[in-house]
Amino acid sequence: MKTVLVYSGGLDSTVLLYHLHTAGADVSSLSVNYGQRHMKELECARTITDILGVDHREVDLTSVNELLGGSSLTDKNLKIPHGHYEEDAMKSTVVPNRNMILLALATAWAISKKAESVSYAAHAGDHAIYPDCREEFAAALDKAIRLADWQEIYLNRPFVEFTKADIVKRGAELGVPFEKTWSCYEGEELHCGKCGTCIERREAFHLAGVEDPTLYDEKAPELQAMIENDWRL
Amino acid sequence: MKTVLVYSGGLDSTVLLYHLHTAGADVSSLSVNYGQRHMKELECARTITDILGVDHREVDLTSVNELLGGSSLTDKNLKIPHGHYEEDAMKSTVVPNRNMILLALATAWAISKKAESVSYAAHAGDHAIYPDCREEFAAALDKAIRLADWQEIYLNRPFVEFTKADIVKRGAELGVPFEKTWSCYEGEELHCGKCGTCIERREAFHLAGVEDPTLYDEKAPELQAMIENDWRL
Repeated sequence: MKTVLVYSGGLDSTVLLYHLHTAGADVSSLSVNYGQRHMKELECARTITDILGVDHREVDLTSVNELLGGSSLTDKNLKIPHGHYEEDAMKSTVVPNRNMILLALATAWAISKKAESVSYAAHAGDHAIYPDCREEFAAALDKAIRLADWQEIYLNRPFVEFTKADIVKRGAELGVPFEKTWSCYEGEELHCGKCGTCIERREAFHLAGVEDPTLYDEKAPELQAMIENDWRL
Repeated sequence: MKTVLVYSGGLDSTVLLYHLHTAGADVSSLSVNYGQRHMKELECARTITDILGVDHREVDLTSVNELLGGSSLTDKNLKIPHGHYEEDAMKSTVVPNRNMILLALATAWAISKKAESVSYAAHAGDHAIYPDCREEFAAALDKAIRLADWQEIYLNRPFVEFTKADIVKRGAELGVPFEKTWSCYEGEELHCGKCGTCIERREAFHLAGVEDPTLYDEKAPELQAMIENDWRL
């Protein structure tokens, strides 16, 4: 299968990259710089695709940033909320229509390359606060993508039934270098350990029973206690 | 109605801008620099939105150009084909997935602005060579756009039943400064008069019975004869 992967350099899409690559797919990967604070994920994407020898491209969409006002992921005047995804404050991390933009660009490249599919790491743990993570959104967009060219291209979502812990387990089987992936929204030197995506990352390793090699900021030791207790609080 | 218009600076979308603006809609407009040769259309968009006092943005997507290989609109090594759209050579003017990319960006801005719709100037004369001008593509994408946020946004296509001549007639009623719009794919100083979009532009004025104020390159006088004869040859 020839496919274009929407690739952030994060945990989920890195496991998907290894999953596809190991299965012998002809994978190309696309990262987008949309002015996210956690630009470290773009470095991670370059490092990992270098390791695998994958044709990787990064497009600069920073000029679109001014249209995306109000997201704490792109607006440095806003604070990244700490805590679990279920909390209301996490809504500030929504980037308007991000998935459609990323998938539209990947589809353009897939058409040029005559690929059969566009792959992305949607999974069962995607959060209800993101409207463009809904199954019905993905189904409608899949239909539009199939009609975007004369040659049908489909949306490939092999992890759609996986929890994030399942993704970690799959990554461990595939030998994914987890320490080279990036999740934290803060985008500092180390993972903060406190934002929604850090908490979720730690939780997924814990639930999967896989050792977490991530270097978290040691100023967040109170989280260690949470690992020992009930993550699902 | 609050709407974000996908605005190229060409004839169709300029008439739609006037159509919406005159009807009292709160219109913002978005142009995209995707490395098109006919970048003059972007200047036209700026000029016209200045006249109307519309909130206009231009985003730079030139870094995406490398993903769109093979289109004569973006690859300066390829020649712009001359002749009618029905001709096979015109297929080189297809830009992969352009409509989905433009509409995805406009939708992002519409979500940020809390607009009710995204408008674009799809019309009945859109050509069969463009897969993303198909009605079923637009319908599928409309469905995805409606699901891209919690607040439903729809795809507004008031000209979907109009021919290009109907658009010229509507533009004449609205006092559109046609001479300030740009169509030609060549993107030289004057409209070439020979490429698909120039031929179609001249034809539309002729069929509408509206005087065409466009300055065509006078090296193309043979086209004058075509106007007098049967455009539909």
